[in-house]
Amino acid sequence: MPDAEELERLVAEAEIRRVIARYCRGVDRMDLELVRSCYHPDAHDEHGSFSGTVDEYLEWVGALLAKYDATMHFVGNHLVEFDGADAAWVETYGISVHRGPADRPHLNLSTGFRFVDRFERRAGEWRIADRVAVADWSLRHGPDDWWPLPDEHRRGRRDVDDPVFSTRVRGHKNK
Amino acid sequence: MPDAEELERLVAEAEIRRVIARYCRGVDRMDLELVRSCYHPDAHDEHGSFSGTVDEYLEWVGALLAKYDATMHFVGNHLVEFDGADAAWVETYGISVHRGPADRPHLNLSTGFRFVDRFERRAGEWRIADRVAVADWSLRHGPDDWWPLPDEHRRGRRDVDDPVFSTRVRGHKNK
Amino acid sequence: MPDAEELERLVAEAEIRRVIARYCRGVDRMDLELVRSCYHPDAHDEHGSFSGTVDEYLEWVGALLAKYDATMHFVGNHLVEFDGADAAWVETYGISVHRGPADRPHLNLSTGFRFVDRFERRAGEWRIADRVAVADWSLRHGPDDWWPLPDEHRRGRRDVDDPVFSTRVRGHKNK
Repeated sequence: MPDAEELERLVAEAEIRRVIARYCRGVDRMDLELVRSCYHPDAHDEHGSFSGTVDEYLEWVGALLAKYDATMHFVGNHLVEFDGADAAWVETYGISVHRGPADRPHLNLSTGFRFVDRFERRAGEWRIADRVAVADWSLRHGPDDWWPLPDEHRRGRRDVDDPVFSTRVRGHKNK
Repeated sequence: MPDAEELERLVAEAEIRRVIARYCRGVDRMDLELVRSCYHPDAHDEHGSFSGTVDEYLEWVGALLAKYDATMHFVGNHLVEFDGADAAWVETYGISVHRGPADRPHLNLSTGFRFVDRFERRAGEWRIADRVAVADWSLRHGPDDWWPLPDEHRRGRRDVDDPVFSTRVRGHKNK
Repeated sequence: MPDAEELERLVAEAEIRRVIARYCRGVDRMDLELVRSCYHPDAHDEHGSFSGTVDEYLEWVGALLAKYDATMHFVGNHLVEFDGADAAWVETYGISVHRGPADRPHLNLSTGFRFVDRFERRAGEWRIADRVAVADWSLRHGPDDWWPLPDEHRRGRRDVDDPVFSTRVRGHKNK
C-alpha cells in the first residue's frame, strides 16, 4: 500500500485539477458563479491588463467574454508544489482560442498562457488564493481562417443549452 | 489516510481518462478494434453529421480517417461528475489536427472539440455508454502551412510501425 | 477501499506525469539541470536529427533552444503501460510552439509530437531511461501572425524572473 502522505498528495492534486477544469468551464460557458466558486473570497487575480479582487475580476472578465462569440480554455501540464499541507504553488499550461464577430477581426486570437496560482485549502476546500495569468505567445487568426461548421453538427454554446448540460437532462436524441 | 470514497473516485477518474487516451490512440493509429474497446457494445455515438451505434460509428469513422494522411486527437481538461457509483458524466476538451493529401486541401483542419460522455461501469469496466462530440471551432490550414518534416526525423505512422509500438519491440536503435 | 495494486499504479502514473511536466518546465524556462533530472544518467534520447546520451542531448537542445525567443511544450494525453513493477512504456501527446527572432522567420513553428518513453524506477525514482520524440506534424507561422502582447501584460521569461518563480518569492504585487 502506498503511504498515506502519497495518497493525500494525489487527492489534493486531483482536487486542484478539478478546480482548474471548473474554472475553464465557467469561463467558456459564461457561468460566472462557477468561476467565482474557484476562488477564495479574498483572492487576488492578475490577468492581462487587469489586477484586482475576485469581484472586480468577474466584472472585468464578464465584459471581456461578452465581446467574443466563443472561447475555449484548453489546459494541459499541471505542476503542483506543496507549501505545507494546506497550500500549493500550481503552474498550469493552457491555450485559449477566441472567436470574434465578423466585424471585429482583431478578436480572433489564440494565446499560449500559464496560470501561476497559489492554492490554499481552507475549511477543507482547495481554491485559488492568488492567480497570475502569464502570456507566452498570441497568434492572430484571419476571419476567413475559420471553417464554417455545418449546421447539423452539435455545437458549443454559452448557456444551459450547451450539450454538456443538455445531454444529461434530455438524452442525446433530443437536440 | 484519505477516505475510501475519495480513493475510489481517483481510481475511477484515472480509468476513465485511460479509456479516453486509448480512444485517441485508436483513432490516430487507425486501430479500430482499440476504438471499439472504449465503448460498451450497446453505446450510442453522435459525431459531426453521424449518429448511431458503435458498429455504425466504426464504419463511418474508418472511412473518414482513410481520407486523411494523419490525425492527432490531443486532449486536456477532464471534468468527471459521478451519477451514482457506476456512472459518470465526463467532459473532455480536445484539439484535433487533420492533415490531408496535396490534392485535397480542404482536409487540412484543426478543430476544437469536446467529448461529452456518459461513462458506465459494467462488470468492473468503465466504458463509454453515450458520446456526443461537440464542435467549438475549426481552423483551416493552407497546404503550404505545413513545414515538411525532415526525413531523418522519427515520424508518426498509422500502423504497427509507429514508434509507440516499434520502439518497445525493437528498441530505439532500430528504426 | 481500492486494492493496493490500483493505488500503487496511481502513484506511479502521477509521478511519471510530474517528471514530464518538469521536463517541459526545464525546456521552456531553459533550466537544463531540471531537464537532466528527468533522465537516468545512462538514458538515451532520440529527438529530431539528434540521437545520443543525456549529456549530448543537453548540449544539443541547449544550443537549439538558444535560437528561439520562446518555446512552449504543452502536453496532454498520457498513456502508461507497465512492464513489471519498475518499468513502463509511456506515450505523451504534445504541441510545441516556437517563436523566433524577427530575422529568422523559419523558426516560427508549431509541432505536434509524441514522447514515446521507457520509464524505469530505480532507487525509488521514476525517470526516463529511453526517449523517442516522434513528430506528427509541423505548422509554420508567419512573423506577422504573432499578436504583439501589450507591455503591461505579465509575460513568460526564460530565467528566474519568470512569474512561476518570482511570484512565490516576491508576491504578485511586485513585478
